[in-house]
Amino acid sequence: MTAAAGRRAVRGATEADAEDAASLLRRFNAEYGDPAPSLLELTGRVAELLAEGATTVLLAGDGPDGLALLRFRTALWSPGLECYLAELYVVPERRGQGLGRALLDAAIDDARARGADTMDLGTSEADTLARGLYERSGFVNREHPPDGPLMYVYERNL
Amino acid sequence: MTAAAGRRAVRGATEADAEDAASLLRRFNAEYGDPAPSLLELTGRVAELLAEGATTVLLAGDGPDGLALLRFRTALWSPGLECYLAELYVVPERRGQGLGRALLDAAIDDARARGADTMDLGTSEADTLARGLYERSGFVNREHPPDGPLMYVYERNL
Repeated sequence: MTAAAGRRAVRGATEADAEDAASLLRRFNAEYGDPAPSLLELTGRVAELLAEGATTVLLAGDGPDGLALLRFRTALWSPGLECYLAELYVVPERRGQGLGRALLDAAIDDARARGADTMDLGTSEADTLARGLYERSGFVNREHPPDGPLMYVYERNL
Repeated sequence: MTAAAGRRAVRGATEADAEDAASLLRRFNAEYGDPAPSLLELTGRVAELLAEGATTVLLAGDGPDGLALLRFRTALWSPGLECYLAELYVVPERRGQGLGRALLDAAIDDARARGADTMDLGTSEADTLARGLYERSGFVNREHPPDGPLMYVYERNL
């Protein structure tokens, strides 16, 4: 897919797309063996985030076949917003066709348009496909690149 | 310091504390060689975040000598809030006295009280003192612990 065709394949979701988005998010978690809320509950959650206004959901392909979910907030260290790329997913049968790159390009366009200065995300050491995509797009996982220490995500339940 | 004494040493900041908080944040970045906004600008930023209401700032000690800064947002995967521990800092001359642990304990208390289900943070591979603190407090930096792949932070400017 050319970059132009990729961008045409991506559209911004509205609350009417919340069920499609939730369905993709559930496929994402099922593929990686992670639990997920019911389709009904997750659809409501996506619709609520879209209604709040600090979230963008992008959909790719006719299925839709892929999704990006971006969260925005006032930044601490810069005058604009911080953008967190919370989710990026393409269904297995559509991988290798440029949809992930198209979603990431569209996510960066959207974040810039909303006034974000930075974008960050967390991903697994093992997800080499995603890491390659992020690294080709200018993301780094080291402090003081290119040779500084790695940056880890830590998390816990409360 | 006992756990009880530690908790007494920590208090929630109000907008009147914004300059103290900004001053600690600037010391943090200076210590690690990272750029930071002017004290005036950063004070305004901290006050703005506190006024928005989705941020908690905790201060420890009389200096104050340490700070934690927490950001909250509606969660995608759970019914409550997601809490991001954006900053945790103790000035060098007060390290090893339990202030970091007291701040982290108070951060967890605050996040639970505000309705958060999870807490996450990013830290450097090289910051072994902070990593030990987080790990003793139940944070993990692996998917499917204890032996799953590491989780990396990736970031880029926009």
